[in-house]
Amino acid sequence: MAVYQQVLTDDGFVKQEQLHFPFEERGLQFGDGIYEVIRIYNGHYYLLTEHIDRLYRSAKAIRLHLPFRKQDLCKQLLELLEVNHVRTDAKLYLQATRGSAPRDHAFPNAAINFYAYIEDLPRPTENLLQGVETITTPDVRWQHCHIKSLNLLPNVLAKQEAIDHGCFEAIFHNNGKVTECSSSNIYIVKKGIIFTHPETNQILHGCVRSKVKQFATSLSIPFVEKRFLLEDLSRADEVFLSSSTSEIMPVIKIDGYKVATGQPGALTKKLQHAYEQDAGIRD
Amino acid sequence: MAVYQQVLTDDGFVKQEQLHFPFEERGLQFGDGIYEVIRIYNGHYYLLTEHIDRLYRSAKAIRLHLPFRKQDLCKQLLELLEVNHVRTDAKLYLQATRGSAPRDHAFPNAAINFYAYIEDLPRPTENLLQGVETITTPDVRWQHCHIKSLNLLPNVLAKQEAIDHGCFEAIFHNNGKVTECSSSNIYIVKKGIIFTHPETNQILHGCVRSKVKQFATSLSIPFVEKRFLLEDLSRADEVFLSSSTSEIMPVIKIDGYKVATGQPGALTKKLQHAYEQDAGIRD
Repeated sequence: MAVYQQVLTDDGFVKQEQLHFPFEERGLQFGDGIYEVIRIYNGHYYLLTEHIDRLYRSAKAIRLHLPFRKQDLCKQLLELLEVNHVRTDAKLYLQATRGSAPRDHAFPNAAINFYAYIEDLPRPTENLLQGVETITTPDVRWQHCHIKSLNLLPNVLAKQEAIDHGCFEAIFHNNGKVTECSSSNIYIVKKGIIFTHPETNQILHGCVRSKVKQFATSLSIPFVEKRFLLEDLSRADEVFLSSSTSEIMPVIKIDGYKVATGQPGALTKKLQHAYEQDAGIRD
Repeated sequence: MAVYQQVLTDDGFVKQEQLHFPFEERGLQFGDGIYEVIRIYNGHYYLLTEHIDRLYRSAKAIRLHLPFRKQDLCKQLLELLEVNHVRTDAKLYLQATRGSAPRDHAFPNAAINFYAYIEDLPRPTENLLQGVETITTPDVRWQHCHIKSLNLLPNVLAKQEAIDHGCFEAIFHNNGKVTECSSSNIYIVKKGIIFTHPETNQILHGCVRSKVKQFATSLSIPFVEKRFLLEDLSRADEVFLSSSTSEIMPVIKIDGYKVATGQPGALTKKLQHAYEQDAGIRD
């Protein structure tokens, strides 16, 4: 996928090939930073405010001071769309690290390094229609998964494990208790009720997850935030994931076994429809 | 501290100012890599083989292929000392990431990014003589702390918490069970016996830790690898840390309370002496 030429940095707009980092950079040596991925449909951000709010929550949680106001950042991100003439379905990636400084665990006396860029990203329409296959794997991550930090090695390893099994995503469990996936939240439907992990420090508080809750409420589908087990997964009527790039994604197989009939479920489809309406997606 | 001019990379030797990384780099965006810090005394590596062995173990654990043989890497690291005319006490830092590639959790089809550089680092002689103060803090890290990975955010936050309290190091505990510190292993001495956490996935398998075990054996000091508790820390006769840059470091205060009399202990001093002999340190 093509990255758009202009990148927003703490130094203003620069061309992507001009953006480089030295070898002593806090992201590069410690993963000492935070990030967001924001969906763009037809050249417009979806859930921009929600993502930027979470960015500031992540920053606070790792004691990183973002030296700009939310509204100014949002304004610059909108300018980033403009200067790149983005009209497509795409995604924005942004990250902020504790800067470039001689390597030392303690916080440096340095300006943060911030950058944001846009990349084309078509909707995963076939997967959304057919559903995806998944594996389960132990959740070995740290205790602050609500922070969207750059410490993503366990997520990388889990995602690759899924790919190795010909699957789309890896479902994390903590001694049998399902938390979330390597890069998405997870839900089961049982007897018309949606269950998902509560918003603790064990999962990312997904922006699309908040929307799923809102859609469920609008559709009068009970939405219960409660831990469930691997065995609940295998007995579910429906299973689905959510993330900014996966939207609301049906899960049709787990560890090689079909979820119910192995077809996307009816409630999942209703939520997908609500998502498309909310995001202003035109066919 | 000054970084020596020549840096070893997967592309050979380059000047430090010529080494840059693009914004889509696996270390920078995922912490998807591993590292080592190796002590240099008077221009000579200490425990080089042990560190390089661990580097390869870490690489294997995260499924990173290092495209060079151990002996060739060691040879190049020795050349790095030569080309920089290093004659001082210093440290080598090296890291390897899964390369530069468009951002995607799954493994990229990319060459690794490797670099190694040397920085002057005098011995912490005053701290070694006087001992250091510490705090305790919950261990919120992932479940694979035996891997020396670039996912160091919890270590960074803990170290800064220690600094904020005017302390040198933060001691991690898991529901009261002491594991290690933010960048060192930890030991207590009780009735002439050294206790330290066993070499599980909960701690880094320190190169100096292995030496402490060897020195203890030589000195006929019982060395017991067994979990101990926060309350054992506070009742210990002696407490000390070890790492490549801290050597064998007496701990004289924990959370503001003195360890025993608040002076470095006798066994700790014996181990320090053994370390200096083993490392060939001349006054």
